[in-house]
Parts: sequence; C-alpha cells; structure tokens
Amino acid sequence: MTENRPSKPQSGRQNLDPHLERYAARTAGMTASEIRALFAVASRPEVVSLAGGMPNLAALPLDTLSAQVAEIIADEGLVALQYGSAHGVPVLREQICEIMALEGIKAHPDDVVVTVGSQMGLDMVTRLFCDPGDVVIAEGPSYVGALGSFAAYQAQVVHVAMDDQGLVPSLLREALDQAKKAGRRVKFLYTIPNFHNPAGVTLAVERRAEILEICREHNVLVVEDNPYGLLGFDGQTYPALRSTDPDNVVYLGSFSKTFASGLRVGWVLAPHAVREKLVLAAESATLCPPTFNQMIVSRYLATHDWKGQIKKFRENYRDRRDAMLSALEQYLPAGCSWTKPDGGFYVWVTVPEGVDTKAMLPRAVTARVAYASGTGFYADGFGSRQMRLSYCYPTPERIREGVRRLAAVLESEMDLARTFGSVGTRQIQGPQTPSPDTV
Amino acid sequence: MTENRPSKPQSGRQNLDPHLERYAARTAGMTASEIRALFAVASRPEVVSLAGGMPNLAALPLDTLSAQVAEIIADEGLVALQYGSAHGVPVLREQICEIMALEGIKAHPDDVVVTVGSQMGLDMVTRLFCDPGDVVIAEGPSYVGALGSFAAYQAQVVHVAMDDQGLVPSLLREALDQAKKAGRRVKFLYTIPNFHNPAGVTLAVERRAEILEICREHNVLVVEDNPYGLLGFDGQTYPALRSTDPDNVVYLGSFSKTFASGLRVGWVLAPHAVREKLVLAAESATLCPPTFNQMIVSRYLATHDWKGQIKKFRENYRDRRDAMLSALEQYLPAGCSWTKPDGGFYVWVTVPEGVDTKAMLPRAVTARVAYASGTGFYADGFGSRQMRLSYCYPTPERIREGVRRLAAVLESEMDLARTFGSVGTRQIQGPQTPSPDTV
Repeated sequence: MTENRPSKPQSGRQNLDPHLERYAARTAGMTASEIRALFAVASRPEVVSLAGGMPNLAALPLDTLSAQVAEIIADEGLVALQYGSAHGVPVLREQICEIMALEGIKAHPDDVVVTVGSQMGLDMVTRLFCDPGDVVIAEGPSYVGALGSFAAYQAQVVHVAMDDQGLVPSLLREALDQAKKAGRRVKFLYTIPNFHNPAGVTLAVERRAEILEICREHNVLVVEDNPYGLLGFDGQTYPALRSTDPDNVVYLGSFSKTFASGLRVGWVLAPHAVREKLVLAAESATLCPPTFNQMIVSRYLATHDWKGQIKKFRENYRDRRDAMLSALEQYLPAGCSWTKPDGGFYVWVTVPEGVDTKAMLPRAVTARVAYASGTGFYADGFGSRQMRLSYCYPTPERIREGVRRLAAVLESEMDLARTFGSVGTRQIQGPQTPSPDTV
Repeated sequence: MTENRPSKPQSGRQNLDPHLERYAARTAGMTASEIRALFAVASRPEVVSLAGGMPNLAALPLDTLSAQVAEIIADEGLVALQYGSAHGVPVLREQICEIMALEGIKAHPDDVVVTVGSQMGLDMVTRLFCDPGDVVIAEGPSYVGALGSFAAYQAQVVHVAMDDQGLVPSLLREALDQAKKAGRRVKFLYTIPNFHNPAGVTLAVERRAEILEICREHNVLVVEDNPYGLLGFDGQTYPALRSTDPDNVVYLGSFSKTFASGLRVGWVLAPHAVREKLVLAAESATLCPPTFNQMIVSRYLATHDWKGQIKKFRENYRDRRDAMLSALEQYLPAGCSWTKPDGGFYVWVTVPEGVDTKAMLPRAVTARVAYASGTGFYADGFGSRQMRLSYCYPTPERIREGVRRLAAVLESEMDLARTFGSVGTRQIQGPQTPSPDTV
C-alpha cells in the first residue's frame, strides 16, 4: 500500500511538520534520543551491546508456561479476554502483597494498583502529583524512563548525588532546603534504593530512616522504585522504605525483571487516598491492564517455584556481573573507575577527564561494542564522563569481549585527549525518552 | 496481613487525605463516578445490566486460541515475554493496515503505533496536543473515556450536537467560529463517526467531506475514533475520515470490539511527524505495549477467518439490537424517544421532561435493571434527560426483561413528575472517569 504523505514543503524554510504549532508545551521538549539511530547498528549481532537493559529470560520454564497460558484460555478465556477493572485482578493483588512482604512491607491488597509495567505506575504517580514547574528530586544519575515521565508532565528534576552507599542524606537535605528557599514546590523524592539503575549502588540500610525523616520534615512524598530488590546476588534483601513509612511512601514494583518484561505487569502500592486517585488516573490512561497477562502472572506465582526461579536469575546475573567486573579490572585503562553492584543489572563507569562518552559512542559502535552514555541519565546535562554498562543480557564471554573492545576505544580516546585536549565538546542535553535499550 | 493505615484524624475538620495539598491541579477534578457504587449492586446476577459496554465474546474460538497462545510461548517465548519497541510489532502493524483498508484507508505500517487499547491512543494524542485550557470539540454526548482523558490534561470540552445523521456541520462551524472569536485555542475535533458511543448514530457519508473541510479551514486537527466501524449490522462500512484527509486526521482503532478487549491492543494511525512524537510519548507512558498480546492478535489475524468471526459478532449484536428496539417500542411510555443504531452497541434514549435519569438510577437498580445515565457523557452537565442502553452483553431475553422493568420504573417516575413536578434536581456534573461498565 502506498502512503499519502504530506506534500513536500515549497521552500527550505518551511517546517517539515505541519502540526508543529499545534502541539502542547510538553511536546516541544520531546525529541528522540540522539543515540537511537546508533542502536540500530548496535543491535547487529557482531556488536556486543552493553547498552540494553533487557532481562535474560533463557532460564524461564517455557514448556510449563506454554501449558499454563493454554489452560487459562481454555478454562477461563471469557474472563481473560474481557475488560477487567483498572484496579487489577484481586488474587494477583494478594500475591503481590506476599512478594512485598519479603522486603518487610505490610500491605492490604486494596492499596495495590496493577499497572502496565511499573513505567505506567511512574507515569500515573507523576500525573497525580506534578503540575508544570513542580520539582522532583531524583538521584543523579537516575532512571532514564523516570526522567522521560517527569518531562512529560513538565516537572523540573533536581538531582542529588550518590556515593557508594547510595543517596547522600546531607545532600538531600541541602537540596530540599534550597528549593524551599527558592520558593519551589517539591512534590516527591524519586529513588531507586536497591541495585540502582544506572548507578549500581544500594542505599545503605542505616541511611533509610534518615532519608524518610528528611522527606517527612520537608513534607515531601517518597516514590520508591524497586524493580531489582529481589535480585541481590547473595539472596540478600533490604527493608523497603515503604516498610517503615506506609503513609508517606508510594512504592513501585514490577514483574519485568523477576518474571517476564513482555507481559508488562507492574504495580503501585500507595496510601489509601492516593490509591483511589491512581485507579481513576489509570482508567483514563488505559481503562484497565490486560486481564490475560495478570492471570498468567497470577497462575505462575501460584503454581511455580517462583522464588527458586528468581534464585536462578540471580545466579545467572551474578556470573555476568563477575565477568564484567573482572574484565573491567583486567582491561580498562588507569584513570577509569566503576561501581561494584551487589545485585541488579548495571555498572556505572567514570572515565578520565577529556573523554566524552557520548562523543565516543559512534567510535565504540564502529569497534563493535555499545554502551549507554551517561548524559541520558541526567536532566541537567551532566554525565558526559560516565557510561552505563549492563551485564544482564550478553553471555559472560561476550561481556569480556565487549569490555576488551571498549577498553581499546577508551585507550585511543585518552591518547587523543592527551595529544589534542578534550575530544568533542558536549552540549547541555535534557533527558531522553526511554527505550527498551535503556530500561 | 494487616495494613498500617494513616492514623485517624484528630478532629472532624481535618482532611482525610493527608496528601490533598500535594496533588497536581488536574487531580482536583478527579472524582469517582457517583454511579460507581451502584454498579456493585448492578453486577448482581438478578439485575439486568444495560449499562455496560463489555463485548460479548462467547462466539470466540477459545480452543483454537488456547492452542495458539501455547504455540507462541513454546516457539517464540523469549520474544513474546521480552520488551519490544514502543512502536509495536512490525507484522501486526502491517496487518492493521490491511484492516483499515476495509474502510478506504491507505496507510504505511510505519505510521501505525500500537497502544494498550485505543484508550491509551486517546490519552497519548491528548498528551501531545493539549495544554491546560485548550479546547477540544466533541460530539454531545461523547465517549466517557475520552472526556476522562481530556480532563486529565485539563482540556476544555465544547460539545457540538448531533442529529440522526451524526455531527451537524453547521453547528461545528458555529462552535469553531465562536471559539475563535473568544480567542480560545481549539486543538482538535474528537469524533466517533460510526455507530456512535453513546448516541448510536452514524455520521452521514455526505457530511464527511464537509466536516473535514471545516476543520481544515479552522486549522483544527481531526481525531477519528473508530472502534465499531466493522460492526455495521448489514456488513456495511463507511469511508473513514482518514481515507480522504491523511494529513489532518489522527485515526484510533481497536481490537477490543472485533476480537478481545482483555488483551488491550489498539492503535493510532497518525501523520508521519505526529507518529514520531507518539512513539516517544508512549515510551514514557508504558515503555512498550505487551509483546505477547500483539503476537496473539497477529497470529489470530494470520490464521483465523477473522472476517467471518466479525460477521458472527455482527449477527449476534444485530439480534440483540433487534430485541432492544422491539422491546423499547413495546414497553416504553409515550414521550420517550430513542436512536436506531445500524451497528455498534448502544441506543440513546431521551425521556420526558420532569424525569431525571440520574436521580432515577437507584430506583431502577432496585427494580433490577441498570443503565448509564446521560450526564456522564457530557462535560457540561447536560444529559439528565438521557440514558444509554447497551445491548452488547445480555441475551435478547434479558434485554427484553430489562427494558420491561425499566419501562415500569419510568412510568412511575413520570407519574410522580405529573403529580409533584420535576423528580430530583440535578446538579451540574463534570465528566466521570470511564470504567469498563461505561466503555
């Protein structure tokens, strides 16, 4: 079929998008990530991608799942294929409470809202709370998909730095005090306490009460995003922020990393009054999450050794983390440093001054290795000396080879920098919208 | 498990929601439909619900589908359960173009974006185009879920009346001229041309070019929502607005009424530049639509006689429409009037002056029949003499019995009105958020 495309503009000065003047203000800042085009190249098999955040699903019991989805349609197809409530399937909400109990959360299933992945939860929470110009505090760096949602609602992000123990309480207090002095409305702290994306660090348990206390003092809600909490490599879990402050924390959970990302099942646990509004917001966003998908997750949880399955995932990711850390140790030039994650998917690398990770990316892809450059994880243009390397998807052998290639590219960039000064100048860059490549 | 609920307020004057001052402005207007509580009662088996918009799925080939979903997981599980692109599965986008060709649309698969139901498409289009205070023109009455999305982005709805031939072009022109004079920014016309929800009418073919021309003249985009287009009872289809004006129409489609609503697969066909922004908006909303669900729809379309299936659906709905129209004719008191749909799910009934359909609803539910009162389908408080009756879900026998009960309630309301004047006074009422009961 042929497409009736808009006719060519008559002059080079005319805008290519005839709808340009019609867009909402929020749409103006919506531009594709500059690195998106590169990912088309990066997805070629000869390129080792350390850029993506796709979970490794190879350990999933596909035969069992295949039989289960068939049963659901055969036995309960008229329910599975029908509209459901925006709140979510009740039995799944009960099971979600059992999962959250592993991190010390006591919750009532009524206060859980099932969402189309936790990305939708994030979007809904931002919709409920953020007027244009409101401030959201987030770790620096932060999850690229969160920055995308905040931008969609025209919220302003203020980053607070982390160290090896996660978000630094004194810096959080400082940021909140400054915002208050400046008369800005801070709506919430967005935080990923466990196995941070992209930083790979975990918020120290002894800091948690203090973070909660600071937010309470400043009358700021806490949005706790915890997709990786059960992926601690030694099986360790940490007490959720929500577990000790149920009235002031909205908690986001997901089955994308512990079961199957392609089903898009996540959830929000919220204080009661917020939960009611979340359901209304979710109705206007998607009417309801897919019923079938919720039933699949529910049956899987009810019939499968899902904790054993998560253990398999953990062991798999631990092997890959080990492969990456040892390769970084072996290959990366002096002057580079990186975080040492105890769980999750990511290592955050800082390169020597003079190297710009975004400018370097095309050269890396040419050398058949890809990564996510750091600027995408900041709303304020920071991050040009950082990159995120993910070890979740490639095999340990590919990871080693990828790091080896990356090291060679880095060496040559550093050579150039030593000879000619800084390589490539970085422009200030806003948040990029997420893609599965940068989840 | 027990829930740590917020402690009881100390005084009756204290607000029950401690987060109240934190919400965004858009959240203030977000309140649950007053009739929602009634639906809990209305869903009891002894109540005939003419309120819901749930498709009747009984004719679906569950055995075939059961085998197909099993195959997808067994053969391609690692793809089906993995993240995909926000744009949607390519083969499905091609198939969607073939479906749209039935209504005269020539489109390129690149310009199709798969969404989590067409509700998400609607939400994304509103996100792209509407700043707070912008005007959206919509038929009066209009789809309750659309009103919910418009409210979520603080757009103002201006209703334009329909007659038996659908939206009235002269009134559309008048509304646009008035908005222009008042200096208001009209962003788009939202229209459901075929088998309208809730009005049950279809836009006359001879009006379509004129509607498009008026919108072009006024530099206003057209958002064409067409979930029922293939459900014309005589197999008739109408040329989509998009078919003759590809540059100025955004088209919304859905598999919810022609296949399975619980999979939540819909789509948007948009002019090229708009489509690029839609993909970015969709990424920040849900990252991607569920991969598995798209593969299910795609395989169903590829292997099943889906046109034959739609024919079965049509015949089923035609029987029910017939049952409803003949029951209305037989039972409803003089002074009532209603539309006569040639397709889709709904009849729109106007009752005599003095009867308030919303005030009457509790009495109807007590008499074991439920309907959707008209005010929910207007953003401006109109509709208190209207109600939507849906014939999609109950059997013909139940429909007849429901209308019989409804007629008795109406008679008694009209008696009261004759004796005491108007029954119950209506307050002005904003849009209600949608629920599957009012889809």
